[in-house]
Amino acid sequence: MHTHILLVDCRDEEGLVHRVTGVLYRHNCNIISNGEFVEKETGHFFMRTEFWGQVSDEEITGELKTALPPDTRIKLVKKLKKKIVIFATKEHHCLGDLLLRNNFSEMSADILAVVSNHSLLKELTDKFGIPFHYIGHEDLSRSAHEEQILQIIDGLEPEYIILAKYMRVLSRNFVSMFPHRIINIHHSFLPAFIGANPYKKAFDRGVKIIGATAHFVTDDLDEGPIISQGVVPVDHTHSVDDMIRAGREVERLVLAQSLKLVLEDRVFVHNNKTIIFD
Amino acid sequence: MHTHILLVDCRDEEGLVHRVTGVLYRHNCNIISNGEFVEKETGHFFMRTEFWGQVSDEEITGELKTALPPDTRIKLVKKLKKKIVIFATKEHHCLGDLLLRNNFSEMSADILAVVSNHSLLKELTDKFGIPFHYIGHEDLSRSAHEEQILQIIDGLEPEYIILAKYMRVLSRNFVSMFPHRIINIHHSFLPAFIGANPYKKAFDRGVKIIGATAHFVTDDLDEGPIISQGVVPVDHTHSVDDMIRAGREVERLVLAQSLKLVLEDRVFVHNNKTIIFD
Amino acid sequence: MHTHILLVDCRDEEGLVHRVTGVLYRHNCNIISNGEFVEKETGHFFMRTEFWGQVSDEEITGELKTALPPDTRIKLVKKLKKKIVIFATKEHHCLGDLLLRNNFSEMSADILAVVSNHSLLKELTDKFGIPFHYIGHEDLSRSAHEEQILQIIDGLEPEYIILAKYMRVLSRNFVSMFPHRIINIHHSFLPAFIGANPYKKAFDRGVKIIGATAHFVTDDLDEGPIISQGVVPVDHTHSVDDMIRAGREVERLVLAQSLKLVLEDRVFVHNNKTIIFD
Amino acid sequence: MHTHILLVDCRDEEGLVHRVTGVLYRHNCNIISNGEFVEKETGHFFMRTEFWGQVSDEEITGELKTALPPDTRIKLVKKLKKKIVIFATKEHHCLGDLLLRNNFSEMSADILAVVSNHSLLKELTDKFGIPFHYIGHEDLSRSAHEEQILQIIDGLEPEYIILAKYMRVLSRNFVSMFPHRIINIHHSFLPAFIGANPYKKAFDRGVKIIGATAHFVTDDLDEGPIISQGVVPVDHTHSVDDMIRAGREVERLVLAQSLKLVLEDRVFVHNNKTIIFD
Repeated sequence: MHTHILLVDCRDEEGLVHRVTGVLYRHNCNIISNGEFVEKETGHFFMRTEFWGQVSDEEITGELKTALPPDTRIKLVKKLKKKIVIFATKEHHCLGDLLLRNNFSEMSADILAVVSNHSLLKELTDKFGIPFHYIGHEDLSRSAHEEQILQIIDGLEPEYIILAKYMRVLSRNFVSMFPHRIINIHHSFLPAFIGANPYKKAFDRGVKIIGATAHFVTDDLDEGPIISQGVVPVDHTHSVDDMIRAGREVERLVLAQSLKLVLEDRVFVHNNKTIIFD
Repeated sequence: MHTHILLVDCRDEEGLVHRVTGVLYRHNCNIISNGEFVEKETGHFFMRTEFWGQVSDEEITGELKTALPPDTRIKLVKKLKKKIVIFATKEHHCLGDLLLRNNFSEMSADILAVVSNHSLLKELTDKFGIPFHYIGHEDLSRSAHEEQILQIIDGLEPEYIILAKYMRVLSRNFVSMFPHRIINIHHSFLPAFIGANPYKKAFDRGVKIIGATAHFVTDDLDEGPIISQGVVPVDHTHSVDDMIRAGREVERLVLAQSLKLVLEDRVFVHNNKTIIFD
Repeated sequence: MHTHILLVDCRDEEGLVHRVTGVLYRHNCNIISNGEFVEKETGHFFMRTEFWGQVSDEEITGELKTALPPDTRIKLVKKLKKKIVIFATKEHHCLGDLLLRNNFSEMSADILAVVSNHSLLKELTDKFGIPFHYIGHEDLSRSAHEEQILQIIDGLEPEYIILAKYMRVLSRNFVSMFPHRIINIHHSFLPAFIGANPYKKAFDRGVKIIGATAHFVTDDLDEGPIISQGVVPVDHTHSVDDMIRAGREVERLVLAQSLKLVLEDRVFVHNNKTIIFD
Repeated sequence: MHTHILLVDCRDEEGLVHRVTGVLYRHNCNIISNGEFVEKETGHFFMRTEFWGQVSDEEITGELKTALPPDTRIKLVKKLKKKIVIFATKEHHCLGDLLLRNNFSEMSADILAVVSNHSLLKELTDKFGIPFHYIGHEDLSRSAHEEQILQIIDGLEPEYIILAKYMRVLSRNFVSMFPHRIINIHHSFLPAFIGANPYKKAFDRGVKIIGATAHFVTDDLDEGPIISQGVVPVDHTHSVDDMIRAGREVERLVLAQSLKLVLEDRVFVHNNKTIIFD
């Protein structure tokens, strides 16, 4: 007996909820929670069901395929920990937070390794007994650098890659290998202050609130589907450094929140937006 | 063709979602949104469905009764404006906000009348062309006072009574006539500072956040099911009066939010708690 | 005996607080509250003092001029209500909120008149007995339209002009006549979604938080010094219209907050930023 | 040359700011920031000044004593890291957060040691090279247990003791030895849910927001001066355990915020309230 999570999305039509729940009912599954949403603009249907039962994933998936429209995306998973790899550079706050949560089994994930283009965070990572892979980017082309990273990742087979303040832009090629499986924490309240030095820009503009954005990484820098955002008030007494410090608190909170949503299979991606059942 | 809202709650058992959606499917209804929740502690099932179709309410309700367990509570309503009556005393901020929203048809309700134990807010109410009933409580027993109020209400048949800073305690008898149909805005973050003068108590305690709570009124003062709460930061520079002023902003926001939820039939009450599909 | 507010700003140097308080001390003024801030980047000194005393404004100002560096800006005012004029177009929520607050003397201001390029809000304004000036912009050049507005304003001599969702861009010429005396509420969390249709842009981008920004109006559209910002969470269930509705709540709250700060002389403007003593 | 922080509080009278700044001016100190507040209820004056200069603390303090009323409390400190000791029991989230911040020198404090009545958190503390003192309370009277703790503390001479989810009540005697020097994080939005199991109580009451409170420890359990509070929204889908998890996030944030305020000498305590210059 296991808890399963079923994600279904397709063009909307009548009877979809009834058909999906019919398959589960016939297999004596008990629905724990069920969320449904129809996006009016595109007429698209989304459903997330958490259920309890002793079933064959293949059988259920097969029957759902028969019952639902041909283009339906179906994802059926057991509620288990995911495997993730974290990329970081020099800033420790997001990484430290995730290492702590991992150490006490507070995430629906196991951290397999930390990959970094600097060696600075090795000491922190070592404290928690997680493998640290230093892969410097100096004197390397972007593709050569990513090639080395891929060799590490290939052996680990992570389901998600978490960019915990990883300060390198990933190539189109790299990103395409992990569609909607790379999550970045951006140090601004997107789409404000896209690109580099957002806190300096926020300081110069004299804003009264700053923020952070967790999003899936796509080809376009800082333009991927947003998962979660958070804000923190600032005022004229905040220097750029004060803003950076205040921003760190919200960055790690937003990253942790968005990871919770993704790792519990609560997030659909559709047309560069997320539909989230929380 | 109408938008309908269906609320169903009963003891949890297998196949409930399937059975409910089956009835709707057979009547060619199209589900717009669907929320479901099972409370583990009590094993109770809650479902709210918004659907579109040309159906007979009696037919649907009848078939649902057949399909579902005997004790099931079923509420099926057309998505229409509710009729409400507002009770107020001397403070204008919540009343003024609701009169403005009503004036511009921004609520899922029409305000039929304002009832008050003071005449102070007549001028404000008159501006918006809403009948104002002054029913003073001086020299009257509580029951005699409420008797006069009931005569007004009886002719109006409101679905909900909104206590917009009405500073009189309603009798057990009165409350029992409108079960889960009286909504109060309490000027504190319940259960902190139950009873009178919450802002004075908050000031004396030196709290750093104050709040407001919208709840259904039950026999126990300030103990009814909570619908919505909000907070606002305060500090040592706030006098009691400053706290009262800051509190007003959150009071009217929280009251408006909770009314939206109730008037759109998004709220279940169960064991002195609310289950809300928003 | 009056409460006075003194605002002083100049290049930072030693002894400024001592010199300012010395002048007040010699006139037997009692300081109620005192805030001071030195901006490190520009080495600029800001001080706001609220004090109680029976003094001649000219005398105090004269002595301060002698005691302080030559370029010092000195503003000394009695704590009294300001005179304001509100500009609006078709949306009522900010105007309605300000009319209510004005009606119950809750602002440190008196609304002298409402000016609008549409007649839609006349009925609302009339309810509160405030003069409404409809000045249509059709078939008029921008300067001709503003000329008519100025004729109204010239007779009223307002200290501040409040753009409560006024949907016309003011000319450089008009703005220059009221430096740091025009306050706008912008329906986005600036600098995100500058320009028209911010909620549509927010919807398209799939953001999880939207906001509003109150700022002084300068030549550059949406680029003036920010006074206050606020946010509200949204999600995939929000249509553009839902975002607009949610945004209205935060717009009027942010406008009211920023007005409080400005009308109580708590705001310095320096290099397109605000320094606020609240 | 050092940054100094001066805290002064006394009964309010005319000229206090002028007198304090006069002393600093005569010693060629440059004021970086200055906050002042007069509590009207008690007529009490509070002033915090951060200044830069090469001065003798004894000289400045001596001159201030002469210049100010006899009962004035004067605290003059160099802006340096404080020494702290952390008490914990079994929960790791606050301790882990503080160890991380300490490890990267992000607090205005150095953690000298962790004291615990359980051995569970030794492994975590060891990772960061901080001494861990396990002092079990089984078979010991409260005073005997505290006696052992005091032996550890006596050697360390911490300026503050931080109760990072330390689940033992400290005796009146112990508390009296560290007046306003023990900081506790309480897992509720005080004064709601005083005492044990606040999350269970919050769940039973069906609240929509939960919170955390950091306060100085006094004789009365959960009744000491509040430093900082924070909240997080919850709903019907939150079990008690979910509330505990959500609460942890705000607990550690609130504890970190309040420590920042205390360690930077921004907090006055007066009549069971805090006056905070942030």
